[in-house]
Amino acid sequence: MKKGDATRREIIQKAAPIFNQKGYEGASLSELMRATGLEKGGIYRHFESKEQLAAEAFDYAWKTAMEQRLAGAEEIENSVDRLKQIVRNFRERREGLVPGGCPLLNTAIDSDDGNLILRAKAKRALRELLDRIEGIVTTGQAQGEIRRSVNAKELATLVVSTLEGSLMMRRLQKNDEPLALACRHIEEYLEEKVRD
Amino acid sequence: MKKGDATRREIIQKAAPIFNQKGYEGASLSELMRATGLEKGGIYRHFESKEQLAAEAFDYAWKTAMEQRLAGAEEIENSVDRLKQIVRNFRERREGLVPGGCPLLNTAIDSDDGNLILRAKAKRALRELLDRIEGIVTTGQAQGEIRRSVNAKELATLVVSTLEGSLMMRRLQKNDEPLALACRHIEEYLEEKVRD
Repeated sequence: MKKGDATRREIIQKAAPIFNQKGYEGASLSELMRATGLEKGGIYRHFESKEQLAAEAFDYAWKTAMEQRLAGAEEIENSVDRLKQIVRNFRERREGLVPGGCPLLNTAIDSDDGNLILRAKAKRALRELLDRIEGIVTTGQAQGEIRRSVNAKELATLVVSTLEGSLMMRRLQKNDEPLALACRHIEEYLEEKVRD
Repeated sequence: MKKGDATRREIIQKAAPIFNQKGYEGASLSELMRATGLEKGGIYRHFESKEQLAAEAFDYAWKTAMEQRLAGAEEIENSVDRLKQIVRNFRERREGLVPGGCPLLNTAIDSDDGNLILRAKAKRALRELLDRIEGIVTTGQAQGEIRRSVNAKELATLVVSTLEGSLMMRRLQKNDEPLALACRHIEEYLEEKVRD
């Protein structure tokens, strides 16, 4: 890696928590400078604009979140158990995330009335998560592990909305109960209505 | 109502969509001035600070949301049907809301890393919604309409997280499908697991 690339990468990693915690408008230049230890010129030598930096910071935060959420899932043979692993990861693997909570939830709410690049990023991130879940469902159906009557798209939507909604509640209540409940609910649903 | 009170009220109503759409940081004075048709001095004659105006704008947006969500529910005798009415309202009564989507979802995400007054408001709003649902569940249990085994607090958490999460998805996908699915899922759950 060239030195310029390494610096660029470091700026992204250090800016990501600021954008994820404060939102696009709330992330001030002074905070970005403090976090990166660089002057304005030092940051913007590597990025065209605040918008570009925010977009790459989102990509980084989302990649990290997806790694945590999918961790260990691929290795699991049975498709229902693979879905359950993803649900478990939502609850348990929160240490490795970029500080500030789920970047999809943050950016969906933060970007919905203006920032088109970030909005497109969040939309694509949601699509990626849904696609992964839908893929597991259709695989599971082909392997006779998941009922044919299950609609993959609907199940994916349900899983993601329940988990993300509980993350919002968790953040206000500052305890893990909503998330634990949401996970248990989905796990029961997967056993009762999804597993063949 | 005194003239000053009427003006104050009008400022709140006109500022509410700006705060709900743009968030606290994103709501600029120039937009607030444009929306209210007042100069800075005209606005701040009635409010101590931007924070105070934002807090009252949230109260107004939330009061409107709760009116829509609870509309027609009190009149329904059976507790499960009353819960189903609230779920239906989430899906169907969206016209009367302050533009910008659910103020609870917006403010929970927007305020979580700094604005303590707004955060406290959002937390209390969530508590209010949960209490209403829990109250219906315990009434339903006393009346023999809801199974004794149902945990009121857990059910309320589940309903709210599923609906609010689907609102986030709806906003990114710009279609009603996630919300319709979330509502149908809860309606089925209420019939299968909750109704006695």
